[in-house]
Amino acid sequence: MIADQPLAVESLDRLLRPRKLALVGASDKNLFSRRAFAQHKRVGGDRRLGLVNPRSRTVHGAETVASCTDLPGGIDCAFLMTPQRTTAAALEDAAAAGARAAVILSQGWAEEGASGLRRQQELVAQAEELGVVLLGPNHLGFANLWDGVAACALGLDLPVEPGSFALVSQSGAVGSSMVGYAARQDVRFSFVVTTGNEAMVTVADAVHYLVDDERTRAIGIFAETIRKPAVFRAAAARAAELGKALVILKAGTSELAARTAAAHTGALVGDDRVIDAVLRQDGVIRVRSVEDLICTGTLCASVGPVRAPGVGILSVSGGACDLIADRGEDVGLVLPSLSEQTNARLAQILPPYGHPQNPLDVTGGALADPEVWRQGITAMAAEPDIGLIGVVTSLPTAGEEQRDDTFHAVGSTLATVGLPGAVFPQIDQVQSDYVRKVKSESGVHVVLPSVERFVHAAAGLTTWSKWLNAHTAPPARTTRVEPAVPVIGPMLSEHAGRALLQQFGVPLIPAELITDATAAVAAAARFGGPVAMKICSAEVAHKTELGGVELKVEGSDAVAAAYERLITSASAAGVALEGVLVSPMRSSGVELLVGVTADPSWGQVLAVAFGGALVELLDDTALRVLPVGRDDVRSMLAELRGYRLLTGFRGSKPADIDRLTEVILAVADLAVSLPAFDSVEINPLLIDGERIEALDVLITSTP
Amino acid sequence: MIADQPLAVESLDRLLRPRKLALVGASDKNLFSRRAFAQHKRVGGDRRLGLVNPRSRTVHGAETVASCTDLPGGIDCAFLMTPQRTTAAALEDAAAAGARAAVILSQGWAEEGASGLRRQQELVAQAEELGVVLLGPNHLGFANLWDGVAACALGLDLPVEPGSFALVSQSGAVGSSMVGYAARQDVRFSFVVTTGNEAMVTVADAVHYLVDDERTRAIGIFAETIRKPAVFRAAAARAAELGKALVILKAGTSELAARTAAAHTGALVGDDRVIDAVLRQDGVIRVRSVEDLICTGTLCASVGPVRAPGVGILSVSGGACDLIADRGEDVGLVLPSLSEQTNARLAQILPPYGHPQNPLDVTGGALADPEVWRQGITAMAAEPDIGLIGVVTSLPTAGEEQRDDTFHAVGSTLATVGLPGAVFPQIDQVQSDYVRKVKSESGVHVVLPSVERFVHAAAGLTTWSKWLNAHTAPPARTTRVEPAVPVIGPMLSEHAGRALLQQFGVPLIPAELITDATAAVAAAARFGGPVAMKICSAEVAHKTELGGVELKVEGSDAVAAAYERLITSASAAGVALEGVLVSPMRSSGVELLVGVTADPSWGQVLAVAFGGALVELLDDTALRVLPVGRDDVRSMLAELRGYRLLTGFRGSKPADIDRLTEVILAVADLAVSLPAFDSVEINPLLIDGERIEALDVLITSTP
Repeated sequence: MIADQPLAVESLDRLLRPRKLALVGASDKNLFSRRAFAQHKRVGGDRRLGLVNPRSRTVHGAETVASCTDLPGGIDCAFLMTPQRTTAAALEDAAAAGARAAVILSQGWAEEGASGLRRQQELVAQAEELGVVLLGPNHLGFANLWDGVAACALGLDLPVEPGSFALVSQSGAVGSSMVGYAARQDVRFSFVVTTGNEAMVTVADAVHYLVDDERTRAIGIFAETIRKPAVFRAAAARAAELGKALVILKAGTSELAARTAAAHTGALVGDDRVIDAVLRQDGVIRVRSVEDLICTGTLCASVGPVRAPGVGILSVSGGACDLIADRGEDVGLVLPSLSEQTNARLAQILPPYGHPQNPLDVTGGALADPEVWRQGITAMAAEPDIGLIGVVTSLPTAGEEQRDDTFHAVGSTLATVGLPGAVFPQIDQVQSDYVRKVKSESGVHVVLPSVERFVHAAAGLTTWSKWLNAHTAPPARTTRVEPAVPVIGPMLSEHAGRALLQQFGVPLIPAELITDATAAVAAAARFGGPVAMKICSAEVAHKTELGGVELKVEGSDAVAAAYERLITSASAAGVALEGVLVSPMRSSGVELLVGVTADPSWGQVLAVAFGGALVELLDDTALRVLPVGRDDVRSMLAELRGYRLLTGFRGSKPADIDRLTEVILAVADLAVSLPAFDSVEINPLLIDGERIEALDVLITSTP
Repeated sequence: MIADQPLAVESLDRLLRPRKLALVGASDKNLFSRRAFAQHKRVGGDRRLGLVNPRSRTVHGAETVASCTDLPGGIDCAFLMTPQRTTAAALEDAAAAGARAAVILSQGWAEEGASGLRRQQELVAQAEELGVVLLGPNHLGFANLWDGVAACALGLDLPVEPGSFALVSQSGAVGSSMVGYAARQDVRFSFVVTTGNEAMVTVADAVHYLVDDERTRAIGIFAETIRKPAVFRAAAARAAELGKALVILKAGTSELAARTAAAHTGALVGDDRVIDAVLRQDGVIRVRSVEDLICTGTLCASVGPVRAPGVGILSVSGGACDLIADRGEDVGLVLPSLSEQTNARLAQILPPYGHPQNPLDVTGGALADPEVWRQGITAMAAEPDIGLIGVVTSLPTAGEEQRDDTFHAVGSTLATVGLPGAVFPQIDQVQSDYVRKVKSESGVHVVLPSVERFVHAAAGLTTWSKWLNAHTAPPARTTRVEPAVPVIGPMLSEHAGRALLQQFGVPLIPAELITDATAAVAAAARFGGPVAMKICSAEVAHKTELGGVELKVEGSDAVAAAYERLITSASAAGVALEGVLVSPMRSSGVELLVGVTADPSWGQVLAVAFGGALVELLDDTALRVLPVGRDDVRSMLAELRGYRLLTGFRGSKPADIDRLTEVILAVADLAVSLPAFDSVEINPLLIDGERIEALDVLITSTP
């Protein structure tokens, strides 16, 4: 278990921005060494690079030394490509040469199970001893494109042009594929970091460090597990502060993948529903494929937050317009319909059979006349709801001047109207050198591979931008209040639980705790009408199961009889009672479940769901990690598929949503204030128009 | 409106397999003419091709004639690249030269609105007069790759190798993009047909014709609308008979796209939920992107139906294993877990830290040792549940022999074990010439671009294969029975409706139609307990709204009073009554809605949904086009999210599903038997364990 705290910036500086780097175990025979040397050259290699190999004088056509200590002036960071068993010695040597950071390539560590894990722990202990920070092991290193330094054995060539998109990948193999794809798509990185077994530097550490890199405007993350949840959330908060996007492909979401991942990386993949809630809460863009990770990340890095969440589309193909509308609807892309005025402007540039609308089919005419693009984009840019322009057209190829003209028209017009935009072909295509040339000449900054990628990337960007604008850090309602009732595990009786709810201002159904039949009858009489009677004990979680609940009891004799039945069944079950709770019966209203549980990695999780049969049928639960603010709770309620039940659906009384929000916040406060917290569950919270009442509560805590 | 019947095979033979073809309006200045000439050359051009142009002697370096009639031996088909206004004359000339088929490229027809539609209708009339079948207008023609003939102005080069995948696209622009993508991915076509405005030849006609082409093993379809539903379904049935897959990307599924499509093609896109039901019912594979259309189609064409729906995955990247498991879960890909025995075999070939499972991470070792692939695939092939193998590996590049070895190992092993398989890289990649070379040498038949494409394609293939094995044509329960009650629109009273249900064996709640208070009281007494009372009229669809329903009425006085209230509100509303229906009240049970409505294009559609609040909250409706068989109805019920409510969910009585199935089939029979049919709706059909009763029925029919 590693401490959930960020690593010191200085050590990550030494690791990711070393002034002097040594390739240890450099060898012409070693594939990884060949790759590392080539990648370092590709990214500029203007750093002093030392090759260390005790057995051969020259490697990769350069001179070697036998030990890091032989490198004049020492080193900051060593890339250990040596076999697992010689790692300790190599680390010793590197540290002796001044290295305070090491990148460990080898396999044979935690991924091999118990014995390997022990070896890895010993390695970490040694590194801490030496004051060295470790990247890896069992990964493929990193590259820093702006400073031109790479300790990187990725199997595919890095794109060499530096950019504003940082990529962090737990998996080296996936990292290789992603840089290869990025190179084909002219995606430009500031950093590429693979973390592997994460003995010290985790994905969260890398993101936490890179988010403050001024050249980095968006970070893409491929992770099977997030080992430092608090550091990750801190990084997300900082990213929101700086208006930088985090885009994540979280692998291991399926049960099968969870098993698989656990197998090959020893990574524990958390409950995906909780992780999903955290990501939504922290404004992290979640994607479902590596292609989308790269394309969404690069769009966000190039464009940054957009002024409005709507997207305006212009296309030479009507079919593409349909596909964008279809796919857009699936992923929540907003395609605003246009104002009369804009439509009128568009009508003037379209042929008689054209149809002014968004998405706009500019028709074949635009092929011959770039003016159509200029006018079309200008008209759409006048729409206040549109913050991003998407243009569907074939990519330029030598000898098809029309396509170049389109790019120039689009590039210059976007610059004029001051809106960001992306150009993309209808179907997956790579960016030829010719396309890159036309891009830079035309001022088109973003070219994406296809309609599908654009739709996903634009949905991610615009949804995030919207979140960013609305986002306010939740009021830290985290101040613990001393509980009125001592909470000593494992469980509070309902009576004690009610006292706590009351202390925190959660409205309760009236109830009397009585200890004999006469009192029961008297209480029932005071309430009038049918009552509910429940045994009250600190030893029973599920009263119904042992006959501890009597509903719709009416009339003195019935009440007395019910009391006796309750006592009998309790003693039959050998349960110590505080007494019996008598409450009026409620017949109408909507049942909610409001609960807080403890997630091992993310902490207290607030859950709101519809109670009764609906909850299971709808599988309709909204989750948030505490602390939460009013807006969080409101959006939780709005997320629920059954939300309409609270807004007067089919003649039901509309609920007082503000009041309900306060009640749910009160439950959150209560949970935050409980020591040795385990779980609070109000089920049901009955909402009947204005009236909101907790009908039952179960509070458990770990002794 | 075009007749929903297939076109004569002979005319489509002349159109798509012409012995002699004329390019009319051939001109060096005309982009489309240049493309058409080039494409025809690419596909072999071994057909005698005539160039027609009255004004220039030579075009595209070949000799021209002034009129089709000047071409010795005449022609079968003419590709009219002439402007819209000269089309009639050109068609006349082509027909005079013997053409019985014409491909019309020009725009300016139905897509331009009313006047254009009129022009198009005149063109069709002329063509029918001349006995000429028309493809287009407003499209980019077709290519027949085995016979080497193309009347095709697609903007991107066709892949020239003929294959077993036929592509039919309503949109020319989308068609161009798709053939370009196909060429990059080494996808091989038998035919490519674009249909445009579909003046005569619709998508359905093309599919209906191509499904019987021996060389075609799968057909991919891009369509915004299906103009001949019956022909399309007949084609699907034939495809199932022949074990050929149909894969469709149906555009215009979103409301916005529906509007857009209507705008640019005048295509009416039907209710997507009905179309979705038809596709599921007919075993047509539905995809969501053009890339998936091509990749799924080519996989199905190369592999055909698989023996078992499970897929076995081998990968050099653990990350890819996770992604396949994750995405697979999303799209219903079956990844069977392996038997002890198979795991034991795998354990022997894996390094100590390897984990035998599916998906299988073969670990880096496999890069060096092709034997790992051989053994791994052989072991997985021994699993009876596995019908397809997927291999994740980098594509070969000159100088990386290991990758070639992988291909050879995979290709030869698949051949030995007799299982189909596909190889694909982790992330989108195109197929270089080198990859194509290694493919053909190694006997690897299918290479797909990425994990994502494979997952979608494999899910489509395996789901379809499973459907194909289970599929039996529904028993044609279509024989009309003479209704016991004359159905003369617009509406039947509930009493008459009940008589019809009874005739067809649908169980009814007991009810008495009475016409005075005394009879009402007597009836209520006979039933005992509380009763429901409803006005019975052939003029009222929604009784409740005008106070025509009284529930839980108990006791003589209450019944008499309720009767009077009903009569009063009916006369207040000026409604003629047959009387009042008295039935016992039912308190428990699950409510279903069972209805049949008429879809303008697909005919009678059976709907089964949960009644009450659930139906709207769950948006939980199963649809099928009639006729249906027992299996269809069972799968409809199983599709419902609330299905558990019928199987004893939370202590509710489990329903008699066989009985329920029969009842739903009876409703379908009733609908089939109704003349001037409009709609039948039983809401609710109350299911209370064994007991199934129609509580209310509304039958309307078009006069």
